[in-house]
Amino acid sequence: MTKEPTWSQRFESALHPAIARLNASISFDIELIEYDITGSQAHAKMLAHTGIISPEEGSLLVSGLEQIRQEYLSGKFHPGIDAEDVHFAVEKRLTEIVGDVGKKLHTARSRNDQVGTDTRLYLRDQIQHIRSCLREFQTVLLDIADNHIETLIPGYTHLQRAQPLSLAHHLLAYFQMAQRDWERLGDVYRRVNISPLGCGALAGTTFPIDRHYTAELLQFDEVYANSLDGVSDRDFAIEFLCAASLIMVHLSRLSEEVILWSSEEFRFVTLKDSCATGSSIMPQKKNPDVPELVRGKTGRVFGHLQAMLVIMKGLPLAYNKDLQEDKEGLFDSVKTVKACLEAMTILLHEGLEFRTQRLGEAVAEDFSNATDVADYLAARGVPFREAYNLVGKVVKTSIAAGKLLKDLSLSEWQQLHPAFEADIYEAIAPRQVVAARNSYGGTGFEQVSKALQAARTQITVK
Amino acid sequence: MTKEPTWSQRFESALHPAIARLNASISFDIELIEYDITGSQAHAKMLAHTGIISPEEGSLLVSGLEQIRQEYLSGKFHPGIDAEDVHFAVEKRLTEIVGDVGKKLHTARSRNDQVGTDTRLYLRDQIQHIRSCLREFQTVLLDIADNHIETLIPGYTHLQRAQPLSLAHHLLAYFQMAQRDWERLGDVYRRVNISPLGCGALAGTTFPIDRHYTAELLQFDEVYANSLDGVSDRDFAIEFLCAASLIMVHLSRLSEEVILWSSEEFRFVTLKDSCATGSSIMPQKKNPDVPELVRGKTGRVFGHLQAMLVIMKGLPLAYNKDLQEDKEGLFDSVKTVKACLEAMTILLHEGLEFRTQRLGEAVAEDFSNATDVADYLAARGVPFREAYNLVGKVVKTSIAAGKLLKDLSLSEWQQLHPAFEADIYEAIAPRQVVAARNSYGGTGFEQVSKALQAARTQITVK
Amino acid sequence: MTKEPTWSQRFESALHPAIARLNASISFDIELIEYDITGSQAHAKMLAHTGIISPEEGSLLVSGLEQIRQEYLSGKFHPGIDAEDVHFAVEKRLTEIVGDVGKKLHTARSRNDQVGTDTRLYLRDQIQHIRSCLREFQTVLLDIADNHIETLIPGYTHLQRAQPLSLAHHLLAYFQMAQRDWERLGDVYRRVNISPLGCGALAGTTFPIDRHYTAELLQFDEVYANSLDGVSDRDFAIEFLCAASLIMVHLSRLSEEVILWSSEEFRFVTLKDSCATGSSIMPQKKNPDVPELVRGKTGRVFGHLQAMLVIMKGLPLAYNKDLQEDKEGLFDSVKTVKACLEAMTILLHEGLEFRTQRLGEAVAEDFSNATDVADYLAARGVPFREAYNLVGKVVKTSIAAGKLLKDLSLSEWQQLHPAFEADIYEAIAPRQVVAARNSYGGTGFEQVSKALQAARTQITVK
Amino acid sequence: MTKEPTWSQRFESALHPAIARLNASISFDIELIEYDITGSQAHAKMLAHTGIISPEEGSLLVSGLEQIRQEYLSGKFHPGIDAEDVHFAVEKRLTEIVGDVGKKLHTARSRNDQVGTDTRLYLRDQIQHIRSCLREFQTVLLDIADNHIETLIPGYTHLQRAQPLSLAHHLLAYFQMAQRDWERLGDVYRRVNISPLGCGALAGTTFPIDRHYTAELLQFDEVYANSLDGVSDRDFAIEFLCAASLIMVHLSRLSEEVILWSSEEFRFVTLKDSCATGSSIMPQKKNPDVPELVRGKTGRVFGHLQAMLVIMKGLPLAYNKDLQEDKEGLFDSVKTVKACLEAMTILLHEGLEFRTQRLGEAVAEDFSNATDVADYLAARGVPFREAYNLVGKVVKTSIAAGKLLKDLSLSEWQQLHPAFEADIYEAIAPRQVVAARNSYGGTGFEQVSKALQAARTQITVK
Repeated sequence: MTKEPTWSQRFESALHPAIARLNASISFDIELIEYDITGSQAHAKMLAHTGIISPEEGSLLVSGLEQIRQEYLSGKFHPGIDAEDVHFAVEKRLTEIVGDVGKKLHTARSRNDQVGTDTRLYLRDQIQHIRSCLREFQTVLLDIADNHIETLIPGYTHLQRAQPLSLAHHLLAYFQMAQRDWERLGDVYRRVNISPLGCGALAGTTFPIDRHYTAELLQFDEVYANSLDGVSDRDFAIEFLCAASLIMVHLSRLSEEVILWSSEEFRFVTLKDSCATGSSIMPQKKNPDVPELVRGKTGRVFGHLQAMLVIMKGLPLAYNKDLQEDKEGLFDSVKTVKACLEAMTILLHEGLEFRTQRLGEAVAEDFSNATDVADYLAARGVPFREAYNLVGKVVKTSIAAGKLLKDLSLSEWQQLHPAFEADIYEAIAPRQVVAARNSYGGTGFEQVSKALQAARTQITVK
Repeated sequence: MTKEPTWSQRFESALHPAIARLNASISFDIELIEYDITGSQAHAKMLAHTGIISPEEGSLLVSGLEQIRQEYLSGKFHPGIDAEDVHFAVEKRLTEIVGDVGKKLHTARSRNDQVGTDTRLYLRDQIQHIRSCLREFQTVLLDIADNHIETLIPGYTHLQRAQPLSLAHHLLAYFQMAQRDWERLGDVYRRVNISPLGCGALAGTTFPIDRHYTAELLQFDEVYANSLDGVSDRDFAIEFLCAASLIMVHLSRLSEEVILWSSEEFRFVTLKDSCATGSSIMPQKKNPDVPELVRGKTGRVFGHLQAMLVIMKGLPLAYNKDLQEDKEGLFDSVKTVKACLEAMTILLHEGLEFRTQRLGEAVAEDFSNATDVADYLAARGVPFREAYNLVGKVVKTSIAAGKLLKDLSLSEWQQLHPAFEADIYEAIAPRQVVAARNSYGGTGFEQVSKALQAARTQITVK
Repeated sequence: MTKEPTWSQRFESALHPAIARLNASISFDIELIEYDITGSQAHAKMLAHTGIISPEEGSLLVSGLEQIRQEYLSGKFHPGIDAEDVHFAVEKRLTEIVGDVGKKLHTARSRNDQVGTDTRLYLRDQIQHIRSCLREFQTVLLDIADNHIETLIPGYTHLQRAQPLSLAHHLLAYFQMAQRDWERLGDVYRRVNISPLGCGALAGTTFPIDRHYTAELLQFDEVYANSLDGVSDRDFAIEFLCAASLIMVHLSRLSEEVILWSSEEFRFVTLKDSCATGSSIMPQKKNPDVPELVRGKTGRVFGHLQAMLVIMKGLPLAYNKDLQEDKEGLFDSVKTVKACLEAMTILLHEGLEFRTQRLGEAVAEDFSNATDVADYLAARGVPFREAYNLVGKVVKTSIAAGKLLKDLSLSEWQQLHPAFEADIYEAIAPRQVVAARNSYGGTGFEQVSKALQAARTQITVK
Repeated sequence: MTKEPTWSQRFESALHPAIARLNASISFDIELIEYDITGSQAHAKMLAHTGIISPEEGSLLVSGLEQIRQEYLSGKFHPGIDAEDVHFAVEKRLTEIVGDVGKKLHTARSRNDQVGTDTRLYLRDQIQHIRSCLREFQTVLLDIADNHIETLIPGYTHLQRAQPLSLAHHLLAYFQMAQRDWERLGDVYRRVNISPLGCGALAGTTFPIDRHYTAELLQFDEVYANSLDGVSDRDFAIEFLCAASLIMVHLSRLSEEVILWSSEEFRFVTLKDSCATGSSIMPQKKNPDVPELVRGKTGRVFGHLQAMLVIMKGLPLAYNKDLQEDKEGLFDSVKTVKACLEAMTILLHEGLEFRTQRLGEAVAEDFSNATDVADYLAARGVPFREAYNLVGKVVKTSIAAGKLLKDLSLSEWQQLHPAFEADIYEAIAPRQVVAARNSYGGTGFEQVSKALQAARTQITVK
């Protein structure tokens, strides 16, 4: 079979095969096929609605397109590399199905606005999917937090023990990050859900189309106000990739913590077999592969963000073929973020257990109550910086003597400063140290309970 | 003079000088000094308001801090490297001014929440500044567009002549990009303008502080709901850097166009001497340095975004010293974006002139009206894909014959397809080609006039 | 069928299916299968050579592995996701083929050193392949240059006409970049071609292995001197990705030029149909998709480099699962660089034609000979900076008068400066302007001929 | 004072002040002033040597330039923003000093080749400086390793205890990374140390210059063979930034380990006060700021690499002003790498102490000897995979029983497999476990001693 030239009769010879391979996008833009069909159906309805084609022609196009969708879903339609891209593949198959009327489908549009429409429809769906994943992740965090309001865990800055915390409070920090991710994706969505359909190649069209009509059919909130901008804008993809990168930042931080927690040295959690893997050579190993992979995949998403920025840099208006490179990184980022959110949710839900006894022992064996001594004095009128310096001195001598603060006698305390009284021991007991940080947003149990309640309310917004 | 240890008495020996140099941030965080003072004043007022210190102590702290501001602004206060950072520098100077009460300032807060507050106050201001710059840039675009609604310019895809455009329409594409930038910065602002003050080192504080009070004094819209999150969140900086990168993407695209336009080959604009530079050796040169520099500086901002993402990757909670690296890239990005927006605004406003005659000639000498022939046939019932193929053939033979489409005789047209009539000549005249793309968002003059009006309204929102 | 646990009996329950999916690398590391087999064969030979297993066992393993290779090449061996990775897949199939002796293959090694070996064998081959592609690209550049030593083309700085050039000289600039790429890959190769086999999981092994023996069998130049380093080093991948990024930088620069050259405004080259594509809507379009795609794919490779750096940042020793993320970006970069080099070679070889007449006209119509006037005076004793200022003045008045320098009369020249004589006209004729730049490495025809000869010699080194 | 136009008389009006600010590079390229002077002196000598200027003129220029160097070093020469860049600043001052002959300095060169020369001279020096820093870092590693050949430390994969190690072996892994860095910088150096001087603006020059003469004076190993390439090549900067990024990768990995080691949970090292910092609020804190900052600064260098790649992407030949953006990121990377190497060297040398007793206890309390049991069986003929599975089972039952492997009785061992004999206890003792990994590059003490000796020899190469 001789291959029909893809473009106009302007071309005399066929593409060099290596160039055709480089050029073809069908191997990855097939992912958009359902969105392409949906978009084309809306376009066909609009063409009929505005009288550019007849109602009968419109119906034929819509049902022909629907047939292609079914053929694709049932595995009967497999366009190959000679189709160049998903748009030509669909248009060609359509003409096979409905005959010459298929050649009218492309009236008053261009692949430039068409692919922009497809990509936005795709990303719009994916954003909603990722937001659901975030909600599941948040729910699991809250469920665990519920059981651990009064479980203590060392709090760190600089990975040094700083002040003890409610474990629920620690988990709620990740809830808040996910909440921001959820909200940020909402903002991105607003700039994704704008229709470029009808922008044509770059300048609009001479046909009396109705862009608001297709936008409504496709549930776009707005239409692009400038056709050049509509076909050459990829801000929405970059903004999404930034939001995706931030999700990965958050997951990578949690991953780092889970990796630390499951080490022999921390022993804060036990990994379940269903979420850990072994070694090919060391029989004793149980490795935290999930958080390690998630941490590693962070680089991948950052890379895609950077790639997309590089692609756009310095491109003149309007469409340039460089933009074809927008898809693979986007698709891979979507896939990666979903898989990582899912895996971390499973890991938290059924893959790890906090070792509460070990945690309880941990917070009792260090100097992370030192701030409370300084606060104790400051609350009794000693200027904070002075109190702080005094306590620094006690810590130093205690370390030298192999003692903890709770081991000091009352007279030792009073030698240090006369303001100390017997209630200092209560003030520096880990449970009290946590409870006392009862400022808004703090780790005090009362605050944490309130924060949990507020969080439960927040996630009812879908 | 022996240097007093910066931290508590826990430390026996001073920092190694090279380590002190690495550690000190005063050389760049001095940029935050006014925000630091303002934040500390709010903190001091809150301490008095809640009775943690006396009203008199509160007043002393506030006025002492104000004195430091004046000393700084008048060039009398120059903290050196031994101050470590701007926070210690201010606290130390405060104690010199107001005596021991200065040592109470740091009650119930930590540098972790303090620096987070300072950075957000800074960035909040800068975002508003950049939004103003965007408005000025947009205004200049509109002013030029107003004069060029009916000026034609070749429109390109793949840098090949595609369809002629209204120059105003072309400029409005950049207006839309800037509008998205303006709106996006508004979204970022909402996530910047949240107060971490009172989150303490990581866990909140034992003092009965009032975080909502300081937030109100500092005009924050919200307060962080989780103290760990409050001190370790840098999402807002990354989000800003992404928004800044997108502004640079847009400016780099315009830059690329200006560079092309001012080349000998395009000659679409003339650069004025006030915005161009010469060569050290070639006496004839007039170089478009402004857009070249802007295009180059794009890489710089992308680099800062990437750096900030890398810094955050895999950090355990809560604060880690790595976060000190958040500032220089942020400051440089702010400075760069402002300078580039300003320079491009000046360039457009007074640095270049469109050569309208050359533009008019350009659109008449190519095949960019070929789509209109296809549309002409499609509007007369020929299926678009068929029409398109026919026109492709004409273009090929015309090129071979050294003719343009307007040079074909009516009989040549009719030989091609009987649907052609005498009005084909009108349909493919450049002015008509532009005027006819009157779909919403298209380049038709009517649409462009409406778009200009709508744009004028949009920028009244400050 | 119950799935046998992949790891030791230490595990009680199977992996969660979603975690198994995240964890499995077989979908992409199958690309390494032949290298894995080759590496295992060398390992088996060494085990027999050192007496760790018997000679018969060694032979069985080697031939069993060879059978797997044949099964794979003939499409009979398709390991699925339950194989986890290519290494387990091969080991499992081997045991099916050769029985229990298959379970001895993994003696004295670990997947950590095994995958490191596979990746290096792969990359070593790919580097040689890319170097061949570079040689073909260079050859085509030289072939074209040979025909265009005396073809003039405008030379640009700041995309402004600067000084005219020999077209061959222009093309040789790309030859030099490719030459650096070729040499740089040679340096990278030296750091790729080092054997980690025998480093074990991280610490070496208790068996009396002979690492130099396997290294020799596999033609590695060296062996890693430290086992921890051997299993956790990915420098070689990053270094390769940087070299790959530089190749893309060079190709993107050439791409940008081809895009410019094929524009209506430049018209320096004509694109052939076999290397250009059309538009779905504009029948006249012939788009330079190849250079646009290559320019766009530059971002992709930069992104992979960045991703790999991010993955490595802050990882403790030795192996971490994050390293599994090293492969896809590497494979895609290799594929991209090869495809882009191939496409650009084809494009130059058969996809474009320089329009020499247009080029000849271009160099005659501007002020790119102004430096030669300054040089003319400087050679006659006028201080260069003074001469330069004088010529700047002439250019300004000429532009105002609509004249070129060649249009000035001798008396006008002499009014400017008495040193001018009749030979000034010869000195500023384009051909002479090019010929006169006969300094080493300059565009003078004599230099260019020599440079071409030297280049021909350089590429004889394979 | 009226400002003399910087360029030729071609310009009528001065630069807009904001544009002048954007354009000027003097604020950062002043860093190159000494290299600029040295380069100009070589150029002047060559001009005299070739007779382009007289010997007397040559001498005057050289001594005038030397005077500027002295003025700069003694703080008397401070060019301001109106100097535009360091090259014009020096040329202008030179003309003030030596009179009109100063205007001859720029004969036969351009700022394009001049700045390329300066940057390479700068980077060449810096590379040598960084290589010295690497040697000092390596020396400190070896000095510590010398004292810890027989100190045991847990070895990790996946941050799970894997197999115990010699601490010296662990440190030698970083030695090897630094060694690769040192060698890689040597390769970069070869591509940095090439002279572009004499390439002119882009095309060479009409003057009879001698590029090899200046190259020799400036100790360049080669000269660029193509003038266009010479002025537009920034590969060398990118290659350096990649090598710098790899140094940061290595330092960030060591940093991560030091941070872990100094945590309360690991307690493998004690930080000295001279290399640690405190908290503003928590009196007990001693934070590992140095490794945290180094880990954070990694992002900064990656960012500069990415920025430079972005800058180059898609630039047409030859020089474009975008290239001015090459300097700040390069300078900052050089500064950062030097400071980080220095700080880590100090940290290792005098800032931390290994807690050998704690390390000794750590290796005795886990299952990191499990591989040795499998190896024990495999050495006695049990297929490795079978042995591995058996040991996995023992580990599981031991964990359940709260036992370590050393706690199993001989009959328990023999029940597991009859091959076990009394020497199993010796085989799994930590010291023996380490000693037994005596394969080349392994952690066995004998190997480590040899590796140390070899390393001492390696660093004698400066």
